[in-house]
Amino acid sequence: EACWSQESQISAAKAAARGHGAAAPQAQPAPARCPTPSPPAFGFLFDIDGVLVRGSQVIPAARDAFRALSDGDGQLRVPVVFLTNAGNCLRKAKAEELSHALGLQVSPEQVILSHSPLRLFSEFHHKCVLVAGQGPVEENARNLGFKHVVTIEALRKAFPLLDMVDQSRRPKELPPPTTDFPTIEGVILFGEPVRWETSLQLIIDVLLSNGNPGAELEDIPYPHLPVLACNMDLLWMAEAKMPRFGHGTFLLCLENIYKKVTGRELKYEALIGKPSTVTYRYAEYLIKQQAEKQGWKAPIRRLYAIGDNPMSDIYGANLYNSYLKSAQQNQVEAAVKRSPVAASAQTEDQPEQREDCNISMESCESILVCTGVYRHNAEAPGNPEECVTETVFHGHRDFCFDPSLVEASYVVQDVHDAVQLAFKKENWS
Amino acid sequence: EACWSQESQISAAKAAARGHGAAAPQAQPAPARCPTPSPPAFGFLFDIDGVLVRGSQVIPAARDAFRALSDGDGQLRVPVVFLTNAGNCLRKAKAEELSHALGLQVSPEQVILSHSPLRLFSEFHHKCVLVAGQGPVEENARNLGFKHVVTIEALRKAFPLLDMVDQSRRPKELPPPTTDFPTIEGVILFGEPVRWETSLQLIIDVLLSNGNPGAELEDIPYPHLPVLACNMDLLWMAEAKMPRFGHGTFLLCLENIYKKVTGRELKYEALIGKPSTVTYRYAEYLIKQQAEKQGWKAPIRRLYAIGDNPMSDIYGANLYNSYLKSAQQNQVEAAVKRSPVAASAQTEDQPEQREDCNISMESCESILVCTGVYRHNAEAPGNPEECVTETVFHGHRDFCFDPSLVEASYVVQDVHDAVQLAFKKENWS
Repeated sequence: EACWSQESQISAAKAAARGHGAAAPQAQPAPARCPTPSPPAFGFLFDIDGVLVRGSQVIPAARDAFRALSDGDGQLRVPVVFLTNAGNCLRKAKAEELSHALGLQVSPEQVILSHSPLRLFSEFHHKCVLVAGQGPVEENARNLGFKHVVTIEALRKAFPLLDMVDQSRRPKELPPPTTDFPTIEGVILFGEPVRWETSLQLIIDVLLSNGNPGAELEDIPYPHLPVLACNMDLLWMAEAKMPRFGHGTFLLCLENIYKKVTGRELKYEALIGKPSTVTYRYAEYLIKQQAEKQGWKAPIRRLYAIGDNPMSDIYGANLYNSYLKSAQQNQVEAAVKRSPVAASAQTEDQPEQREDCNISMESCESILVCTGVYRHNAEAPGNPEECVTETVFHGHRDFCFDPSLVEASYVVQDVHDAVQLAFKKENWS
Repeated sequence: EACWSQESQISAAKAAARGHGAAAPQAQPAPARCPTPSPPAFGFLFDIDGVLVRGSQVIPAARDAFRALSDGDGQLRVPVVFLTNAGNCLRKAKAEELSHALGLQVSPEQVILSHSPLRLFSEFHHKCVLVAGQGPVEENARNLGFKHVVTIEALRKAFPLLDMVDQSRRPKELPPPTTDFPTIEGVILFGEPVRWETSLQLIIDVLLSNGNPGAELEDIPYPHLPVLACNMDLLWMAEAKMPRFGHGTFLLCLENIYKKVTGRELKYEALIGKPSTVTYRYAEYLIKQQAEKQGWKAPIRRLYAIGDNPMSDIYGANLYNSYLKSAQQNQVEAAVKRSPVAASAQTEDQPEQREDCNISMESCESILVCTGVYRHNAEAPGNPEECVTETVFHGHRDFCFDPSLVEASYVVQDVHDAVQLAFKKENWS
């Protein structure tokens, strides 16, 4: 796991997050080869909502896709990870849901939730962190390595005068002042909570009081405490015809409240989950781990990322593709510097321990399906004034709107078509 | 009630809301008169939270103030209305709370909640309106004249796939499609609801579907359905040291979500509650009604508005003061046009039926107390970079930041001092 040193991860992610400027190149068709029962040199990253399921309902094409991906014993023939921005659940539970929906065995190690990369942020693991979200937030936090976790609910109970929107929950008498409550040193937003007003109020109180919400500081501290957010999706595709609010909508509220109250911008220490590159590096690692476990000898060279949300899935895959191309370029240049003769012959065979050490990965191609957030408009809208949906930027505030990064390498109807397309390119049957 | 024709109200309010440009003039001291047991020529408008109470706790100075305002039998000697931006309650209940807190009998006709002026918006009374808020929202709506009211909860139950944030409330099976639900024609935001995510989602769904949230329109309708909002206070003073989120914070979330999703601005048909002028006209009307009921013959000429929130109370009072000055100016000019001789003698004795018919009201002076949202900073902040609270505009997006309108005629410590100040100016004891 030398490639996965935290420093290299974070600096790589930061470099990727700053963007590489290059547009995602158009995919070149793979050179023609005779089909052989060879181990796969490619893997899949599947988004879940809008690709495989709609809320609790499986999309029929998903079952077709996984039949095509499996052998006679129901075992996958190529490495697959499920890359979801969901986070209000345990990895194990998500794997079980998928197994049930798809009709095959999905293991937790194939599932990346939005918060999974937090495992790497060890400098926060010993801090007292306030965690917001829904479901098994505290358990997830501890599983990721956080030792000192405070929930919104615990904070609300310790400071009963803070959460005042719900009239039925307001204390009838003045409570005694709170003592012995730990100072909060950071805030981790796992996913959309229930009762947004409660979480929004308490998080703002913590930021404005530097971690001691009983206090009244004369000046608003700035910079504020570190805030890490997992999953910035504004919308997601459930069963309803129109997409539903995601965690990104909650973050939007938080950012705007902070700005209105203080006049300053809320700044995230880290924003993870698609389209953040940290998430894709983690996915690549798990793909390779899987291939190794299956005894597939050939290195995995190409990833196919299938999603329904241009702003998170396609943008993320393309951003990662840019990163991979840059990394290859850097590596070629570095090799040329070291040994002009060796460079031409051995570029691909020298795994080096350095920040951009995933040299064997050539590409991450994006495939957009139409069963979710994105619906393909065959015709131009009648009245461009009215049709604003297609042109409105739904990505997070902190990600620049590079139109080329939002364009998928391929657009297909559904996930079965996506898998068939990848097979064709890989000359795989 | 000829002055209260809906047209005149709404056009007057609109004119006032557009602003008159003039800064609130400095108050001139009243001409010296011998103190006589004469009927009062003035009245008080009291904000509640931060002036009389902090949440459920009475501010001691309030009791002193009302002792000074009452006679030996506990009856008020001058007309008083309570002008609050709260709305998640019944007027009657608020009157009882105040009676209990202040130690005197407060009648519901002395209480103006943020939504009270909706009584005048009769063009909406026959529309099917979606109402959001907390407490007796439906009852309040019907009392104000709305005949066809749909609550968020009823909408949520009729369309079970819309409210998806709370995982525990998601339906386990696909429900049958909803039929026979009325088309919603407007949205009224009474006050901050509980479970903001639910109200935010459903309101956005209604606006994006033109009132039929089951539907999926190809284009986003714009302009959207009418939205009326009561109470735009960003923050309010409860028992906690720092102010708490008010309905304005909920509106901020709604506006920003609408903007992010559609790329367009949410536009309110009406924004009522302080500092909106509609509210102050209604207050003036009730003051006069009270004076008449008490048998006080002298017309009420001057209002003293006491509050703790510069953005709503002081701004509102000053805006109304500007309106009154303009109205007087208009009236003088109109009288001069009609009869140059009569004008000088009779300007104040000819109540005319016209938009600006409150000719007898001279002024509405603003008095700011320090027991609530506003705390007077005696010293300049040490580090201007850090001290952002004083200079950040907390008023609503649709109200321009005119610094002169935010300056109170007077700043005093508490409500007792405010009452004494007014008494002094009025030569009253």
